[in-house]
Order: sequence, then structure tokens, then C-alpha cells
Amino acid sequence: METSASKAEFVIGVDLGGTKIMAGLFNRQMECLSHSKVRTKAQKGQELVKERIVRCIREAAEKGQVGLDQVRAIGIGAPGPVDSETGRVVFAPNLGWRDLNLKQELESILHVPVFVENDCNVCTLGIQAVELRGNPRHMIGIFLGTGIGSGLILNGQLFNGFNRTAGEIGHMVLDVNGPECGCGKKGCFEALASRTAIFKRLQAAVESGQESLLTQMLGKDLRRMRSSHLRKAVARGDSLVDQVVRQAAHFAGIAVANVVNLLSPEFVVLGGGLIEQLEDIMMTIIADTASHYAMPGTMKEVSIQASRLADDAGIVGASVLALRRTT
Amino acid sequence: METSASKAEFVIGVDLGGTKIMAGLFNRQMECLSHSKVRTKAQKGQELVKERIVRCIREAAEKGQVGLDQVRAIGIGAPGPVDSETGRVVFAPNLGWRDLNLKQELESILHVPVFVENDCNVCTLGIQAVELRGNPRHMIGIFLGTGIGSGLILNGQLFNGFNRTAGEIGHMVLDVNGPECGCGKKGCFEALASRTAIFKRLQAAVESGQESLLTQMLGKDLRRMRSSHLRKAVARGDSLVDQVVRQAAHFAGIAVANVVNLLSPEFVVLGGGLIEQLEDIMMTIIADTASHYAMPGTMKEVSIQASRLADDAGIVGASVLALRRTT
Repeated sequence: METSASKAEFVIGVDLGGTKIMAGLFNRQMECLSHSKVRTKAQKGQELVKERIVRCIREAAEKGQVGLDQVRAIGIGAPGPVDSETGRVVFAPNLGWRDLNLKQELESILHVPVFVENDCNVCTLGIQAVELRGNPRHMIGIFLGTGIGSGLILNGQLFNGFNRTAGEIGHMVLDVNGPECGCGKKGCFEALASRTAIFKRLQAAVESGQESLLTQMLGKDLRRMRSSHLRKAVARGDSLVDQVVRQAAHFAGIAVANVVNLLSPEFVVLGGGLIEQLEDIMMTIIADTASHYAMPGTMKEVSIQASRLADDAGIVGASVLALRRTT
Repeated sequence: METSASKAEFVIGVDLGGTKIMAGLFNRQMECLSHSKVRTKAQKGQELVKERIVRCIREAAEKGQVGLDQVRAIGIGAPGPVDSETGRVVFAPNLGWRDLNLKQELESILHVPVFVENDCNVCTLGIQAVELRGNPRHMIGIFLGTGIGSGLILNGQLFNGFNRTAGEIGHMVLDVNGPECGCGKKGCFEALASRTAIFKRLQAAVESGQESLLTQMLGKDLRRMRSSHLRKAVARGDSLVDQVVRQAAHFAGIAVANVVNLLSPEFVVLGGGLIEQLEDIMMTIIADTASHYAMPGTMKEVSIQASRLADDAGIVGASVLALRRTT
């Protein structure tokens, strides 16, 4: 019976992204014992990515000196809509996947129970369960990066909705005549406040002759621009970048108000690359704008804050998922 | 024990509005046995309105030949934010009320348990429980009239959120540079698709010299305009009214898509005076626009429909509330 007792001790959380895969080994107290990271190499195809996920999981276990037979379950956050009942990734554009039963595939290789959820849901679960110690009954996690996504905790549980697609906040229309979005519509939150939206606005400004320190860092073509470049440019006094980032934060504040009006959450937690790099500029504007746009009474004792988990939200949340699904 | 058994037989649902109060007597099968209606006379003050609510309740019971001792509970839908735990009406601008414990006040007069909820929540509950026979686990009821409000059923239960203000969809920003809203912001759903928004657009068009049959019906000042006038004008071929109503429906469709993207409900049910009068024109546009704006996969098997309960949604829903809270 020693095996079975020790088997219950550990979980592994996996953050499956378009560019990198991360895995963390956690004990039941959600302490991270080890982690590992590999490049996704999505362009090399589904089979290879699956192999790399397996490699990343095995590495995390080995580094923590734990055998997979001691791992109770593996949780995975995947980028796109997921049928969390069956563990099927419905669609993952960044990986080029469509309709892959990741749970089945990995269980047949690893012989450990696997649970799959959408990445924004997993990050929100990690923030609620670990960063906020399970306190908020109603919260939303909003993640600003290349795109924009969110996860909902309602009545203390992840909320997926009827088609299991809940949380698609990135395509909430805020400015019906606004800039074009990748989805084909205009003025979506993502077309106004994602890193892609900021990049497009800056690229157009630079092409029209406006000055920015970004061209010194990256040249005239800003395509390699990361959130960290934006932070550096603002720190060095780049007023164009400063203005465009503030504008994005303003729209994020309106989106937060729309959600507060509709759902009355207790916590709105923001994360993702943009927030990690530009928290100092963006969070005050987001909170002030949200308070301005929210209806009287809706914001009472509501906390709007940046997540402290940063890049670890995914592996933490995936571990919480693994633990919850097996408890 | 006869009293206690018969007492369990009936409930009364009350729809407390700014212009009229309606009450309905229902049995446990949610069959309406009688109803009554009185004018609210809100301008005459809180005490008088309370007396009129009591009169309306007593009338419904008398018409149904039922004594109040045979009434199990009374449910009330009130216009504004309500603390449904305590039965306190937090704020009801149409009644001029602020912070009134309607539950306590009425229980001390009627000696029957009273439960109070926001009117949009109550209507949504009525639609879910009676019109849709309790089927949808996740649905939203959206009501277009003078203003715009909504109610949420999530996991089969009314969802109030942290501050009990959930459902404030009327102030969801859809067009950040759009027309001014009564709330002081711009481009809220309510400023684009309520009867008030339609009225403002038509009034401005008429003042700028555009032709409309409405001026034949109402004169140059359209302030007395009701949703039924809009229906009649469109039926008689008024192209200005037709165009403005279609535009409002388009915005309602975008709002529906925003909600479908965020919450993935199974049913979106629309009601309120505008929908009752203009369903034929508006519903197709709302459904088509919502499908266009919603993300792929989110609308699968989702039903967008008009409520059949019309003006009875309030008393039906309030009766369901009364029954649920005492079962």
C-alpha cells in the first residue's frame, strides 16, 4: 500500500503554449518542487509536440526525484477551446490543432490520469485557489498578451457554460466602429488592448513618420516587438509608446466595467505579458476607468488587481485542476 | 392541521413597476387563478405606494376566493437593485425609493412571508421555470423597454454576484464614441437600443425635417411615444421608424453576442415592451447579428428567442420566487 499512499502525494501542472511548454511538480500543499521548460516547435506537427509535452512532464518529475507512479494526476492548460469533460482540444490555432483528444493520447503513454482545460481557465483557477487562497466566490481573470482571454470562477467553481466556451472576452465589442480585429469584426477588446493592437497602432504611427525609441531598438519593422520593449521604451521617456499603452489600458478598463456590470464579481485579476511588463502604467488606468464606467453600487469592495503568479499561473492552475479532479 | 395544509396551496406574485402594480394568485402548478392591477402613483410617496401594493395583493386573493392565510408566500419583483437576502430595495429611481426593507414592511401588515428580487431577475426566473419548463441550466433574459436590464440563470439558479447587482447589461459599452447615455457615459447598450434611445433618434430626425407618420399620431413632440406607436408606424410603411428600429435591433444583436462570448448560455430570451410590439422586425436582426458577432462554436444549438409571457413574466416569476423560497 506504500505505492498507493505515496502516489497520492504529487501532481504535475503543464502550461502548453504556442512557443513554449512548461511543467511543474507540486505537492498537495501546492508547493512547487521542480519545473521544466521546452520549446513547443508547433510547426513540426502534432506528434512531435505530444512527444515534447511528455518529455517536459518526465523532466519535471525527474528533477523532483519523483517517479510517475507517485504522481496522482497531470493537469494541462491548452490554448483554445477545450471540452474539459472528455479532455479534447477542440481548436488550438497557435498549435495548428483541431479536435485532438489530448487526455487519451497522454494517458496511453504516461499511465497517469490527465485533465485538460482551456489555458485562461486554468490560470484563473490558479489565481483563485493559490494566490487568493480560494477566497473569492465570484472572480474573473483577464489575460492581456498577443490576444486577450479570460476565465470565470462563479460560486467558487470554474464556469464553462453551455458550449464550454465561456470566457471569450477578447471579442467583446467595445467600439463598434473601431479598428479591425483578427476575427473580422471591428472594435473588439482584443483589437483595442492586446499587444497586437498596440503593435499595429505603433507600426502605423512610425510609418506615418512619428518618432519612437522602438525603431532604435528594433528597426523600422516592429514585428519583433515584445511587451518588454514597450516597458523599456516608456521607461526611457518614449511619449508615443506611453500614449498608446495608456489608450489600451483605458479600453481594458471599459471591458472590466462591462464585466462588473454584468456579473458583479468580487475580484477582477489581470495577467498576461502586457500586464507583467506594464503593470505600473496600466493598472491605475484600468482600475480608474472601470470605476468610472461601472454602475453605482457595483464596485463596492471589488478588488481590481494584477496577478503575482506571472508566468507560473499556468502550471499552478493546472496542478490545482489535477488535484481537484482527483479529490 | 387543515389550515397548514391549505396554506401551502397558493402563492402570490407581484410586479411592482413605476406606473402600475400587478399581482397574480397562482397554485403550485403555476396556474394563474386570478389577477389584479392598480396604478402605482409613485409621486404620492412611499407610504401610499406600500398601501397600493397591499391593496393589489388583497384584491388578487379575494378575486381568487382565497384568504391570505391560505397563501404560502408572496414574491415581489422591484425595479432596481435589491438585496434579495434581506428583502431590501436598495434603490428604485422610478419609485423615488432608497433603502427600503419592503419584505419587513409588508410582512408586518400581511403576516405572510414576503420575498423581494430585482424585476429583471424575477422575469428571467419566470421565463426559465415556466415558459422553458426549468430546462436551461444557463440562460439570460434581456428586457428592452424604457431602459434595458437583464437577469442571469447560471447552473440552474438565479445569479446575483458579489454585490447582488449582476445583470446590469444596459450599461455595457458597445460604441465608446456613441450617443450619450442617461448614466453620463457614451454608447451604452441602453443609449443605443432602448425605447428612449429610439425616441431620441426619431425626435432629432423629425426636428431636422425628416418625415414620419409619428407626427400625425403624436404631433411634433414625440415624448408620449410608446412602443405601440412604433409598431403602427412601421406597419403603415414609415421608413424612418423602420430604419431606426432596425438599427436598435442591430445593437441588441451585438450585445447578445458579447454575452454569448462571455457566458456561453443555452438560451437568450428577449422581452420588454419593445420586443412585445416589434418582435417581427427586431428578432431576426438580433439573432442574425448575434450569430455574425459571436465566436465560432459559441452559438452551437443556442436559442435566441422572444418570450411568450409578455406582461405576465413579472407575476409568474415572482410566484416562482415565492414557491422556491418556501420549498
